[in-house]
Amino acid sequence: MSPESASRLRDRIGALRRRLDDAGLSGLLVTHLPNVFYLTGFSGTAGAVLVTRDLVRLIVDSRYATAARGAVDAAPDGLITVVDVESSYEATYRDLLQPRGGRVGIEAAHLSVAQFEWLQLALAERGPELASTRDLVEVGRVVKDDDELEILTEAGGRISAVMDAQIDRLRPGLSELEVAANIDHAIRGAGFERPAFDTIVASGPQTALPHARPGSRVLGDGDLVLLDFGGVLRGYCVDLTRVASLGASSDDARVWHGAVRAAHQAAVEAVRVGTTTTAVDQAARSTLESAGLGEAFGHGTGHGLGIEVHEAPRVGRRRVPEGRPDPEDVPLELGMVFTVEPGAYLPGRGGVRLEDDVVVTSDGHRLLTDVSLDLREVG
Amino acid sequence: MSPESASRLRDRIGALRRRLDDAGLSGLLVTHLPNVFYLTGFSGTAGAVLVTRDLVRLIVDSRYATAARGAVDAAPDGLITVVDVESSYEATYRDLLQPRGGRVGIEAAHLSVAQFEWLQLALAERGPELASTRDLVEVGRVVKDDDELEILTEAGGRISAVMDAQIDRLRPGLSELEVAANIDHAIRGAGFERPAFDTIVASGPQTALPHARPGSRVLGDGDLVLLDFGGVLRGYCVDLTRVASLGASSDDARVWHGAVRAAHQAAVEAVRVGTTTTAVDQAARSTLESAGLGEAFGHGTGHGLGIEVHEAPRVGRRRVPEGRPDPEDVPLELGMVFTVEPGAYLPGRGGVRLEDDVVVTSDGHRLLTDVSLDLREVG
Repeated sequence: MSPESASRLRDRIGALRRRLDDAGLSGLLVTHLPNVFYLTGFSGTAGAVLVTRDLVRLIVDSRYATAARGAVDAAPDGLITVVDVESSYEATYRDLLQPRGGRVGIEAAHLSVAQFEWLQLALAERGPELASTRDLVEVGRVVKDDDELEILTEAGGRISAVMDAQIDRLRPGLSELEVAANIDHAIRGAGFERPAFDTIVASGPQTALPHARPGSRVLGDGDLVLLDFGGVLRGYCVDLTRVASLGASSDDARVWHGAVRAAHQAAVEAVRVGTTTTAVDQAARSTLESAGLGEAFGHGTGHGLGIEVHEAPRVGRRRVPEGRPDPEDVPLELGMVFTVEPGAYLPGRGGVRLEDDVVVTSDGHRLLTDVSLDLREVG
Repeated sequence: MSPESASRLRDRIGALRRRLDDAGLSGLLVTHLPNVFYLTGFSGTAGAVLVTRDLVRLIVDSRYATAARGAVDAAPDGLITVVDVESSYEATYRDLLQPRGGRVGIEAAHLSVAQFEWLQLALAERGPELASTRDLVEVGRVVKDDDELEILTEAGGRISAVMDAQIDRLRPGLSELEVAANIDHAIRGAGFERPAFDTIVASGPQTALPHARPGSRVLGDGDLVLLDFGGVLRGYCVDLTRVASLGASSDDARVWHGAVRAAHQAAVEAVRVGTTTTAVDQAARSTLESAGLGEAFGHGTGHGLGIEVHEAPRVGRRRVPEGRPDPEDVPLELGMVFTVEPGAYLPGRGGVRLEDDVVVTSDGHRLLTDVSLDLREVG
C-alpha cells in the first residue's frame, strides 16, 4: 500500500467517527467482513474491528495473525492495533467492551441473534449499552475514492479482455460447465484473486433464466450463449455480461439483442451527477417497453459494485408511489460505481442481457468495461 | 432424485418435527441454507423453510422460482409447497407466521439481529412467540444416511483422482497461483459443482502456514509443496491434503512427513463406534508429541464434512479439564463423516499436513479418499 493509499484508511475511519458522533455512539463493533476490509485493508474469512473515538482494534484468530499484522503495518503508524482471539470472537468482544461505557453500536444486519444474545448477557453487569445500527460503514463505501477507482478501472480492463477471448473460444460441442470452467481458469489467469460470483453460462432456452446455472447442456449451432461473470482484483469486484450467437443468429435473437442494446445505451447515457437511480432504471425500462419487451424485463437495471459484488446503490424501479419519497431513489454522486444490465427474457425461448460497469464522473460517466456490444456470431 | 432418496426428505422432516415437539415448539423458521438444502433438496444463494407440525413451506424469491419447483416435484407428493417472496423475505415470514400461534423457533446462529428485530415488531400484535434455538436441524445432519454416503464416496474417489493428477503436474517454474488455477479447473473437470473452499497451494516456507493462500511465489527445485483442496458434488463436500517434494526431498521434509503420516495412521485406526472425537485427536497428538513435534501441531485433528465443509463433529482437543464433561467430546456413531488431518508446522522452515476423509462403519471405518501417503518426489 502506498503512503497515499494508507492515508485513505485514516480518512475512512475519520468519516466513520463523525457518523458515530452524529448517532450518539461511543463506538462501533464492525462484523461485516467487507467493512472490516474497507476500514483496515485486512481480508480474511473471519475478523472484526472495534472502532471507538480513540482506537481501532482489528480482531482476528490465529489463522490470520500474520495477515492482520501485515495490514496493520501498511496502515499509518499506530492507527490500528491487532487483538488476537484466544478462545472465541464473542469472548474477545466482551473483553474489549467490558471496560468501556457509553453506547456501542453493533451491525444489526451482520451479527447473528446468537452472538448478540451472548454479548448482551456478557455485558449485562458491566460494559456499554449495545445499540442496533445499520449501514454506518456502508454509507461511506458508496462513493469510491481514487484508489478504489484505479483498482476498478484496472479490473474492468482485465475482465473485458477475458470476455473477448472467451467469446472467441465458444464452439458447438462444449458443455456449459466446460465453458464455465474455462472462464474461471481465465479469470485467475488474468490476475484476479477469484471469480466475483458463480459464473453464469446459459445456452439456448436457458438464456431465458436471469440466474441460470451452467449445466451439462451442450452448445449447439444456432444457440444464443449468455456469459455473465466477474472477478475480484485486490478486493474489488467487477461484473460483465455479453451474449453471442453460435453460427448465424436467429431473427428473435437479433430483435431481443437490438432492444436490450438500445436500453443499455439509454441507461448509460442517463448516468450523470444529480440524476437519480430510478431515472437510470426508467431510461432502460421505457426503451424496452417501447420495443414491446417491458414485461420481459423483470429485474432492476443495476447494482453498486465495490468490495461486494452487490452493494449500494440499487439501480431499480421506484418501489413507492410517485409523489412519495423513496429512500432507495438516490441521486447519483461523483465516484459512484454500478452496473447497467438491462435484459429481456422470453420463457422457454431465450433471452439477452448486456452488462457493463460505469462510474459517475464530472463529465457524466465513464465505462470501466469495454467489449463490443455487437451480437457476435462465433464458432 | 430416486423415490428412495425422496423419502429421505420425509424421514429428515419427521425427525425434525420430533425434536420440535421435544422443545415445545410449534414450528421452526429455517434460514441456514445448508439446512434448507438438507430438508428440501433446494439449493440457492437465498431461501428459507418454515416447518410446522402440518406443513413445510419452501420460501424463495423470483430468481429461484423454477429451481424450487423442481426440488418440490422431486420430493414426495405434497410434502413441500413453494411460497414466492413478493417484496422481501422478512415480509413473507411475517405473512406466513401471523396467522399462527404457539412458539416458533428461529435459528439464532443464522438470523441477523436486523431480521429478528423486524420480525418481532411485525408479530408483536398478532402471531406466534419467537424462540431463539440452536442446532435443531444440525443434530440430524451429523449422521449421514445411505444417499449421503453414496455421494460422499463418489466425491472422495473423484477428488483423489484430481490430487493424483495434480501432484504429477507440479513443476519448478509454476507459481502457486497457476497451480491453484489448474487445480480449480480440474475440480470442475472432474464433475464437481465447484471447489469446496479456496484452494490452498503452499510451497517452500509457506507450507509452515496452516491456512496459506496461493501467491505469486514460483515453485523451485527442492521445495515442499502442499495442496489442500476440495470439491462439492451434488451438494456435498470432500476435502483432501497431500504434500509432495519437487526433486529430492530434504531430511527435514522426510522427518516431518514421517511423523505426520504416523499421526494420521494412528488417528484413522482409532476411528470406530464408541470412541470419542477427542480420543481420535489424542491418537494423532500423542504420536506427534512422541516425535517431538507436539508444539508444531497447533490445530485440531479434523472436522465433520457434509453439506458444509466444516460441520459437526469437531475432532479436536478437550477444551475442559479431565473429569468434567466436555460437550464437544462426542462418541462416534455409525455414519459420521469427518476429516483426519494432522500436521506439523515449523515457522520459517516449512510444514506437512496429510488429510483424508473417513466414515464410521460397523467394521470401524472406511476412507472416502484414496491417494498414496508416500512423500512423492516429482517434477
